[in-house]
Amino acid sequence: MPAYSSHVQSLRPSVYATLAEKMKSFSVPPIGLHLGDTYAVPPAAARWENLDVKGAGNYRYSHPFGLPVLLEELAAKLRRENGVEATSDWVQVTCGATHALHCAVHTLLEAGDGVLIVAPYWPLFGGMVRCLGANPIEVTLSQLQMHPGAKALYFANPNNPDGHVYSREELEQVAEFAQHHDLWVISDECYEHYLYDGRRHLSIASLPGMAERTVSIFSFSKSYAMAGHRVGYLCAQPPVMNWLRRLANHSVYNISPSLQKAALAVLREGPGFIAEWAPVYAAARERMAQVVKAPKPDGGAYFFPRFESAEAAWDYVERGLQAGVAVAPGAAFGDAYAHYVRICFTCVDGPTLEKACGILARL
Amino acid sequence: MPAYSSHVQSLRPSVYATLAEKMKSFSVPPIGLHLGDTYAVPPAAARWENLDVKGAGNYRYSHPFGLPVLLEELAAKLRRENGVEATSDWVQVTCGATHALHCAVHTLLEAGDGVLIVAPYWPLFGGMVRCLGANPIEVTLSQLQMHPGAKALYFANPNNPDGHVYSREELEQVAEFAQHHDLWVISDECYEHYLYDGRRHLSIASLPGMAERTVSIFSFSKSYAMAGHRVGYLCAQPPVMNWLRRLANHSVYNISPSLQKAALAVLREGPGFIAEWAPVYAAARERMAQVVKAPKPDGGAYFFPRFESAEAAWDYVERGLQAGVAVAPGAAFGDAYAHYVRICFTCVDGPTLEKACGILARL
Repeated sequence: MPAYSSHVQSLRPSVYATLAEKMKSFSVPPIGLHLGDTYAVPPAAARWENLDVKGAGNYRYSHPFGLPVLLEELAAKLRRENGVEATSDWVQVTCGATHALHCAVHTLLEAGDGVLIVAPYWPLFGGMVRCLGANPIEVTLSQLQMHPGAKALYFANPNNPDGHVYSREELEQVAEFAQHHDLWVISDECYEHYLYDGRRHLSIASLPGMAERTVSIFSFSKSYAMAGHRVGYLCAQPPVMNWLRRLANHSVYNISPSLQKAALAVLREGPGFIAEWAPVYAAARERMAQVVKAPKPDGGAYFFPRFESAEAAWDYVERGLQAGVAVAPGAAFGDAYAHYVRICFTCVDGPTLEKACGILARL
Repeated sequence: MPAYSSHVQSLRPSVYATLAEKMKSFSVPPIGLHLGDTYAVPPAAARWENLDVKGAGNYRYSHPFGLPVLLEELAAKLRRENGVEATSDWVQVTCGATHALHCAVHTLLEAGDGVLIVAPYWPLFGGMVRCLGANPIEVTLSQLQMHPGAKALYFANPNNPDGHVYSREELEQVAEFAQHHDLWVISDECYEHYLYDGRRHLSIASLPGMAERTVSIFSFSKSYAMAGHRVGYLCAQPPVMNWLRRLANHSVYNISPSLQKAALAVLREGPGFIAEWAPVYAAARERMAQVVKAPKPDGGAYFFPRFESAEAAWDYVERGLQAGVAVAPGAAFGDAYAHYVRICFTCVDGPTLEKACGILARL
């Protein structure tokens, strides 16, 4: 048989797969705090029984860029909330943020190129880069360092897994670095609405001179609890957007118009749902802070406690499973993070979280 | 600004985009026979009002491979209809066949590899190959020829645009060629249910020794008139399927469970819908045969008439637009096909097709 792509083969074994295998051996499955999700049911407007999806057009191809009316609404949202002077020409609807990131990586990079990744980071991003034969290079915000061959810098704000919310000064530092080294910036803003203690979200594309070198990624999955609908979007200026759009078209053709209508409906309904859930997530964070020895995150959906060693962290994962709670091993989030674990506080309801926190308290 | 991927930049301008621009200038838009679609409304089982999609699970992440119950049903279909001894481990649900092909290309090939493409062919496939930095190499069925660096062979059966349905002898010829040269086979079977004059569909993966080197691609878009739902699937044996699954996960994470339920519902309902529409498409083919000078296609949804020159073909496209019918320029389907045009007979209803045929008769 001929070889597969050497790039795809460079994907590492997933620690999640290892964890899933381990979880199978329990007759009562552990409470899954290793995931990144919310238990919220999406706003009524996004639910099938309330969507106007009866027409024949819902079953046919739709515009590869996205429904024109949704592109307009997203551009308005980007101007209003993100401070980016976007028009509908700056937007592409995608199959979740995963697809948006995939398009960004494949449009900006090619085999042999490097990408600076601000670690710790969302595990699938490194794999996307490897699939293309490009090189993920882990850096940290406090030690941003250029590497030969690097063409882009990726960061998430708020960050997954550690919940870091970038201050204006930090974004300016990233922007200056990207401009100095002439890098593309891939800005993952999936958790833009998960903020605590009065923190505010700033988009790097809103800084002077940054819109032209930034591809920003957003999602409906977290903000509106509709990960199952798989709707995300890309924002970039037309020169690069034209290529992003061709990559999106060549990878999935278009996004289901029915799903896009769910996204349109929640956008039109306004920020009520987000405002309703913010205190629920904040309370869940407070509850978990009582039992997890780690700084409270500024944003996002996770605690990211540090242990003395990789062994101690893995031991915590194992003891958690035995006691009835699954948490994610830190090794998934960067080479230097095997002595951490990630614990999600938004993915189970109040009573389940209470039970899980009881277990975590005893670990 | 840093450069974009040179691979993505190697995408050619789309003749469809040129056509779409031209079409904008008409106050009454021409009848669009340049598209590949069906005007059928999907089976009742696939429509939102009949789907059981109220549960919270529809709004949450689902299994990256696909809903387990759908994987089982698809494996049963592959065994029953395609003669492939598939189990659910051989199947990955995708965002339409476009995504399935994208995953196949990115799993099997890397920059610099060649792919033999049996021409004429579906235009986006060549672009997918170019996006990766691999080389599309056009060959014909009657002159299959190995090229240095080729690692895979792509063909569609029935073919888009010319409707060719592969006989057993032809499939055996392709199989022998692939085995002799140790090539992967990417078999695009989106039009498996569009067959005329009693022809039967055969899957190359059902031939001896071929399942292990074949990645087969299927779609619900054509068979069940639900292109808007964007559900397709890959079939391959586990060694390669494991990598295809990781690519699918790294490109879209998972497919909306709601959309997968539509696919499950139509599969469970059986072949009634396909049987109902077959004579409708056959009648449309007969009608168009009266006005288009080209052999009647054995399968698929298109006539692919040949002209004396590329100029004559483009002139036909232009005169069609002026007269009120859009057809697709042959240049989109391969380097050697600029003297052809592609005309779809399934994408408009009976009265509209009648009107379009009246116009084509006068061209």
